[in-house]
Amino acid sequence: MRSKKHIILGIDPGTRITGYGVIETDLSSFEPLDFGCIRPSQKLSLHERYLAIHDGIEHLLDTYSIEAVSIETQFVSRNPQSALKLGMAKGVALIAATKRSIPIFEYAPKKAKLAVVGTGSATKEQVQKMVQALLNLAELPTPEDAADALSLAIAHANHLKPIGSYV
Amino acid sequence: MRSKKHIILGIDPGTRITGYGVIETDLSSFEPLDFGCIRPSQKLSLHERYLAIHDGIEHLLDTYSIEAVSIETQFVSRNPQSALKLGMAKGVALIAATKRSIPIFEYAPKKAKLAVVGTGSATKEQVQKMVQALLNLAELPTPEDAADALSLAIAHANHLKPIGSYV
Repeated sequence: MRSKKHIILGIDPGTRITGYGVIETDLSSFEPLDFGCIRPSQKLSLHERYLAIHDGIEHLLDTYSIEAVSIETQFVSRNPQSALKLGMAKGVALIAATKRSIPIFEYAPKKAKLAVVGTGSATKEQVQKMVQALLNLAELPTPEDAADALSLAIAHANHLKPIGSYV
Repeated sequence: MRSKKHIILGIDPGTRITGYGVIETDLSSFEPLDFGCIRPSQKLSLHERYLAIHDGIEHLLDTYSIEAVSIETQFVSRNPQSALKLGMAKGVALIAATKRSIPIFEYAPKKAKLAVVGTGSATKEQVQKMVQALLNLAELPTPEDAADALSLAIAHANHLKPIGSYV
């Protein structure tokens, strides 16, 4: 029997760089379908940049049969001004999924690292290396934002496994 | 000669309550076309609430020939967690306008109060009363969020007047 395939989109939103990663998985192995980042031109107004993020995510949702979106939970270490901008980026990215009734799952940064690297205190480079290994990539996934987005997609895939089936 | 009419949408975004106000103006008088607030059901998930805000603003943009959106600039007195949620609400509200290439104008809360009441330190109630007077409303506009949204629309209308024409 062919295992059910799941296609998951991980998003690491930001006003300057929004990382994304699309993986397909049968829950025992992972295949990267697409990853990279949306970098709105600095020549655009701030509102046009949010539109670029929104349109970029819509394009991914139009291209792949994505069944779930995985994103980091809000973290609160930033100052309110940065948090507000991050919230706007997150809002415009996720509304594209909510409009299509695609469920959104949120993972704390530590949980995502734990799922991928095995420790919640992993460095950015450790995350990149582990994502590279899990996805059989020839090179380290860059930028970090794309690797983070892929790690969130992997974290959600691991979450889908029945209890006791973790490898 | 009939003066050019301008239709302006003011928005006071929030996860719990998003106030809105649509006014039509020839720059010498104001007519309220619509005001009120979007209150997403607390039974909805947080993402569904953002969709309700987004859909509500889209409905207003589909209903009226809005030429500009007026909104408060980010204020930074909140904690990062609140600012992130406010940013998400603001992002999903404004993306509806940016998608339609409707320009967005931001006003600092003090500027908006100054434009409407004549003092940047006006109380919420003073804003409500002045909005009521300027729009010839039979009652105080409620909730406060709707009055704030109307005051932002009026502030933008005042901004459109040629220099020296302030009454």
